[in-house]
Amino acid sequence: MIRLLIEPIVRAALAEDLGRAGDITTDAVVPPDARIEAAIVPRQPGVLAGLDAALMAFELLDSSLALQRLVADGARIELGQAVARISGSAQPVLTAERTALNLLCRLSGVASATRSLADAIEGHKAKIVCTRKTTPGLRILEKEAVRLGGGANHRFGLDDAMLIKDNHVAMAGGVVPALRRAKTAAGHLVKIQIEVDTLAQLEEVLTEGSDAVLLDNMDPPTLRRAVEMVAGRAIIEASGGVTRETAPAIAATGVDLISSGGITHSAPALDLGLDIVE
Amino acid sequence: MIRLLIEPIVRAALAEDLGRAGDITTDAVVPPDARIEAAIVPRQPGVLAGLDAALMAFELLDSSLALQRLVADGARIELGQAVARISGSAQPVLTAERTALNLLCRLSGVASATRSLADAIEGHKAKIVCTRKTTPGLRILEKEAVRLGGGANHRFGLDDAMLIKDNHVAMAGGVVPALRRAKTAAGHLVKIQIEVDTLAQLEEVLTEGSDAVLLDNMDPPTLRRAVEMVAGRAIIEASGGVTRETAPAIAATGVDLISSGGITHSAPALDLGLDIVE
Amino acid sequence: MIRLLIEPIVRAALAEDLGRAGDITTDAVVPPDARIEAAIVPRQPGVLAGLDAALMAFELLDSSLALQRLVADGARIELGQAVARISGSAQPVLTAERTALNLLCRLSGVASATRSLADAIEGHKAKIVCTRKTTPGLRILEKEAVRLGGGANHRFGLDDAMLIKDNHVAMAGGVVPALRRAKTAAGHLVKIQIEVDTLAQLEEVLTEGSDAVLLDNMDPPTLRRAVEMVAGRAIIEASGGVTRETAPAIAATGVDLISSGGITHSAPALDLGLDIVE
Amino acid sequence: MIRLLIEPIVRAALAEDLGRAGDITTDAVVPPDARIEAAIVPRQPGVLAGLDAALMAFELLDSSLALQRLVADGARIELGQAVARISGSAQPVLTAERTALNLLCRLSGVASATRSLADAIEGHKAKIVCTRKTTPGLRILEKEAVRLGGGANHRFGLDDAMLIKDNHVAMAGGVVPALRRAKTAAGHLVKIQIEVDTLAQLEEVLTEGSDAVLLDNMDPPTLRRAVEMVAGRAIIEASGGVTRETAPAIAATGVDLISSGGITHSAPALDLGLDIVE
Amino acid sequence: MIRLLIEPIVRAALAEDLGRAGDITTDAVVPPDARIEAAIVPRQPGVLAGLDAALMAFELLDSSLALQRLVADGARIELGQAVARISGSAQPVLTAERTALNLLCRLSGVASATRSLADAIEGHKAKIVCTRKTTPGLRILEKEAVRLGGGANHRFGLDDAMLIKDNHVAMAGGVVPALRRAKTAAGHLVKIQIEVDTLAQLEEVLTEGSDAVLLDNMDPPTLRRAVEMVAGRAIIEASGGVTRETAPAIAATGVDLISSGGITHSAPALDLGLDIVE
Amino acid sequence: MIRLLIEPIVRAALAEDLGRAGDITTDAVVPPDARIEAAIVPRQPGVLAGLDAALMAFELLDSSLALQRLVADGARIELGQAVARISGSAQPVLTAERTALNLLCRLSGVASATRSLADAIEGHKAKIVCTRKTTPGLRILEKEAVRLGGGANHRFGLDDAMLIKDNHVAMAGGVVPALRRAKTAAGHLVKIQIEVDTLAQLEEVLTEGSDAVLLDNMDPPTLRRAVEMVAGRAIIEASGGVTRETAPAIAATGVDLISSGGITHSAPALDLGLDIVE
Repeated sequence: MIRLLIEPIVRAALAEDLGRAGDITTDAVVPPDARIEAAIVPRQPGVLAGLDAALMAFELLDSSLALQRLVADGARIELGQAVARISGSAQPVLTAERTALNLLCRLSGVASATRSLADAIEGHKAKIVCTRKTTPGLRILEKEAVRLGGGANHRFGLDDAMLIKDNHVAMAGGVVPALRRAKTAAGHLVKIQIEVDTLAQLEEVLTEGSDAVLLDNMDPPTLRRAVEMVAGRAIIEASGGVTRETAPAIAATGVDLISSGGITHSAPALDLGLDIVE
Repeated sequence: MIRLLIEPIVRAALAEDLGRAGDITTDAVVPPDARIEAAIVPRQPGVLAGLDAALMAFELLDSSLALQRLVADGARIELGQAVARISGSAQPVLTAERTALNLLCRLSGVASATRSLADAIEGHKAKIVCTRKTTPGLRILEKEAVRLGGGANHRFGLDDAMLIKDNHVAMAGGVVPALRRAKTAAGHLVKIQIEVDTLAQLEEVLTEGSDAVLLDNMDPPTLRRAVEMVAGRAIIEASGGVTRETAPAIAATGVDLISSGGITHSAPALDLGLDIVE
Repeated sequence: MIRLLIEPIVRAALAEDLGRAGDITTDAVVPPDARIEAAIVPRQPGVLAGLDAALMAFELLDSSLALQRLVADGARIELGQAVARISGSAQPVLTAERTALNLLCRLSGVASATRSLADAIEGHKAKIVCTRKTTPGLRILEKEAVRLGGGANHRFGLDDAMLIKDNHVAMAGGVVPALRRAKTAAGHLVKIQIEVDTLAQLEEVLTEGSDAVLLDNMDPPTLRRAVEMVAGRAIIEASGGVTRETAPAIAATGVDLISSGGITHSAPALDLGLDIVE
Repeated sequence: MIRLLIEPIVRAALAEDLGRAGDITTDAVVPPDARIEAAIVPRQPGVLAGLDAALMAFELLDSSLALQRLVADGARIELGQAVARISGSAQPVLTAERTALNLLCRLSGVASATRSLADAIEGHKAKIVCTRKTTPGLRILEKEAVRLGGGANHRFGLDDAMLIKDNHVAMAGGVVPALRRAKTAAGHLVKIQIEVDTLAQLEEVLTEGSDAVLLDNMDPPTLRRAVEMVAGRAIIEASGGVTRETAPAIAATGVDLISSGGITHSAPALDLGLDIVE
Repeated sequence: MIRLLIEPIVRAALAEDLGRAGDITTDAVVPPDARIEAAIVPRQPGVLAGLDAALMAFELLDSSLALQRLVADGARIELGQAVARISGSAQPVLTAERTALNLLCRLSGVASATRSLADAIEGHKAKIVCTRKTTPGLRILEKEAVRLGGGANHRFGLDDAMLIKDNHVAMAGGVVPALRRAKTAAGHLVKIQIEVDTLAQLEEVLTEGSDAVLLDNMDPPTLRRAVEMVAGRAIIEASGGVTRETAPAIAATGVDLISSGGITHSAPALDLGLDIVE
Repeated sequence: MIRLLIEPIVRAALAEDLGRAGDITTDAVVPPDARIEAAIVPRQPGVLAGLDAALMAFELLDSSLALQRLVADGARIELGQAVARISGSAQPVLTAERTALNLLCRLSGVASATRSLADAIEGHKAKIVCTRKTTPGLRILEKEAVRLGGGANHRFGLDDAMLIKDNHVAMAGGVVPALRRAKTAAGHLVKIQIEVDTLAQLEEVLTEGSDAVLLDNMDPPTLRRAVEMVAGRAIIEASGGVTRETAPAIAATGVDLISSGGITHSAPALDLGLDIVE
């Protein structure tokens, strides 16, 4: 991703940790001329994401550090297999360590959770997609981590596509008036998706027409019926209660997309650490 | 917490979701003069945190919205029990919804995970403490969520206390030179804590003196022995492999603090939603 | 539009004019307790746009000023017909005057240029659309001015839809490989448009499929032929050499959209001034 | 101009176009390792301005791009004569293209409009000067473009000189009290100019004394009479209704400066494009 | 002064003191519902400046605090005479106290130092002026404090007038070429001042002409001779070694301005404190 | 100190001086291709501080300037002994001069004032410490200058330690309830200090226990008695009326720390200038 988009996030993360006075422990304890050779090493297997952002934390503190990528973002990584090496002045390496790892562990956690779900539905045409339930401030990095984990991205925000949710439908007085207003306002490069909760609603939507539909909390038999009704006239996304266990049955219904908020909002961090290399 | 400290985070979260053009769906579908009465409702039990930040998202979009807190941060909440009500113009309510919930669900997740761990060691003197393994950009909110969940806060950053980690010890050539350098540099209101991995190291530390020690990855028998060795001369924190299952045995050893990165970096979001109230 | 999106632009505009020391003329010459009743009055007819931004300049300098809208954005305005009244302390009114008018005159200029072009093709189904050739820093306001002038918006930026231009086609080795790569990468709510310069290229595009096509610099007979070829399978945008004179013939070919960079990058400012009201 | 002053403008312009996700078309369609050799080429003759800012857009996206200036800012340029070459990685070149051209075309438009007016009064002592009717956010760049087009700069903002306008005079109760208050408050390096609408007012001003006078909307005979009255005691600026057609007669009256808002607020963009070089 | 110009300074000052976690002492020790009635009271006599900025610190923390000005900026204040009262919630008052006082004491120190120097030359026509030797970040507030202390302002920065210093003269090859280049480049509202170190240089300057001269480090007899040479053709500023003791003799030479860096860069803070009122 | 922490301060200082248009004198008078060799030279003896920040001002304007440190921060410097050399393009050197010197002279002033006080108590165990009475916006640089002058740092802000002042004690209803609340709320790495005004209060504090005490405005005999009472159970800081004259007697009482607001809020700037080197 373009450095210009990531750098403000990494700078803010460093600033939050440095506070006013910087790393008072390292400044006191580690000699200014000490050198270090360190490696970032997974403590558990998973999928790597966020290495650019993590290494930028070191670089922003000291542009003379040597940074070496050993594994590409998106790769499956194994316990103990170093993903990057950092060498140079010891002080900035230790000062940036936590900021770098906080970014890397969270983003690799998102990629790993996505990968796990994507693997569960392998062989089906459906793709895992994310939602806007991302960590405030980290959306573009988490969206990228989803792609690196084998998922696809949904909207990036409120302004790049129309997604008519249940509350919008309620305020508009039904799916048909909601869709009509949306179409009138939408620019020619704006797609429209609408949430439907029942097959009756779906019927209305299909008559009116929509680029995509979001089938929320339907069980597999209902989803299957919906897929038949749509018959290729709209992209179909299924959401609600998606786990590694439930995903295969959902995928088997023939939907195009299975969305999960959990891959971003509840993915446990992937454990990676910084080791000094002898 | 002081509004001045939270507002930039909420503004940035809104900006990230609004993008350039704002909420094109709501602008198109919901009439500008439509009114809404909505409630924030838990979809699962837990501990509430982040309500100030969440409500600020609504207020920043439209200062004329009526915002009513029904439950205080830190309270245990039950499925279906509304925690706040928002009423007024429908457009800003729907536009702010996701930003508000992203903040609220994550922070309540942190509080709930902390509460769960704190409950597990009830009856022991030990307290659960957090680490610096927080979400980049959200540290002060997550630290508060830990307190609301019954935990205590560790350092807020690199500059408000000295924590000498294993890598610092390695670069300094041992715990004793590390501690001596730290004491020389530390201001009179700066406390010093040092990580020790063995009882032999602990012995050295106790001879040299330190405000607190961090015992990393020791099993309960070793921790118990360490507690005896320290004999009140330092605050004792145990870390490593802390879960609801392992925490009681660790607490039973008599340590003062049990730290967990997981309560911040891997807490699943607590599910809360926005419901339109009839 | 949401205040949160406009306010930073107006603050920056004020800051640019105030410099370090503020309005040294007004501070010296106008008594602090002087009151003023002023009106914003067009010096030429046109279409109003930017009144929110303009009035915000006054409000940000002094929130106690009384601001009264007399005409809504988007309305046609006549020479001498006041569009807003400002009353209160004279100093902030005179200090904000130029910033407010700079915003208002430019945005009304964009709306008026759009209206003029839109009027020229009235009766045809084609709509006037803008481009990304907007003033750096003012895009969202200029996009809104286009809508207020009767036009429609194209993409807001590089990230909300795919527009494959001639240079992309050249780098990809043709329209077909370009379209295939685009479709593989595009999220399910991302539309794709491609520029074609010849009917042969258009044929290829139609075979491969694309949400929209941009026919650049084609004369009306060629455009008409293109419309027949497309036969409703894609949205058709015509661009190049669009003026009040050429637009009707282009619209008569049956294209859906006629795009003009000139309505944003070369629209002369609409002349409005601030008059003291007796 | 000092890079520190321009860079924030260019960064903001890029950010506005990149949005959250960056250039999704280029990322999808153009291979990451593709190289490009491109040239910026005028599509019409004019005066070049803004090349520093335009090239900075490319450099900020990718500092490894080779940027070669072929023409200096301020030069007259001809259709088809390349003004700069950019070579290197194709993705950042295409991503920065529109931001770079938006800056370059607007600023060259300002320079060209100024040049056109300056040429019209060649042979007279009068100089063309700009006003504060500039594009919000771009003032320093537009002021420089005016100089590059052969014009001179008026005030940069409200704080670097005193310009007493008609509204100030009205609030102060006449030109004499206005001037007296201004002189009392002005620092010793602050010049004072005052707008006069009649020769009677001018008489009063000359008696009281002022560094400069602004004669607004006077016809050439009146201007000529004013020049005689001033007799070198103040710098004389004429404003109002200045066009290529009216300027020579105004200049012939012997005024020192002829100011035009139109050279900044209504200059059509000069058309330049980015061509791939074989 | 305009609030918009001061607020960023006060916000930054508060942020610097609050750090990440805010005022942990007050939050712990003072009950949230405690009320306070406090007064800002001088511990020594002097001239008040900065009360707007100081009170803004309280207001930004809690807009419900009641703030009452008892003395106007610029007034002479006596030991023990309250200058403002603050009442309301105790926590924000104690949290903002130091930030408010840091601003108030420094700015009152500047005003008091200026007043002291201005009093020393009372009866002479000369005025005390400040320089650009101000505290980084506080220039506009310190410039205002100088005015409040009875001084006048010099340039606010590098861009609002030309001051040709000795180093410029050296690089230009003498005062005459320096002045000629300056006049060619200066806009019609830009004044020019030049530093001269000898009467021979002054002679050259007077022949060439300059709005003002800066006579650096000349003794009173030389200054007197210079005043005679200038004979009203330029404003005369004397600088160098200006103290309460030397100023009267300098003023007696007939110079117009006596500049002092010390009134901003070395003014001791005026001691004011916050007292709880019974 | 970490560059990331200082750079925003230096950028803001430059921006404040450059204004909109930059250094119009240097741009006009000094040829763009002129080279300069300059030295920063003390005009009086003292202790150097702030050289990093000062040199950064030059570097930020022109990264091609050659910057050579001749003296290290913290060193005692003599009149006329160059502390740094700058060579390269003349324009940026002259443009950055004042910003660089404003930072350097202020910070060296703080270091020198600290050194003077520290020298006065040499031979005693007491150390000079600073307070939070620093210049808004410059705290971290002034805290560093204190260390460079031989002093030690107190808290950096409101959030890195608890300091219970007299007003807190008043609101809490006495030192004992204040201390108890503080201890309950304090994290395990947060130290607590409390201000006491009488020996009776000190007695209470010692019974309750506190990491440190602040003895405000006590005379040496009382301080001596307090030192005996404390008997090593708390760090002792004395404050109030500390000058070069009073400090030795205070130090002789056996206190650990002597705090002075004056070394930051009232230190006269140390005079250093920029000389062109032949």
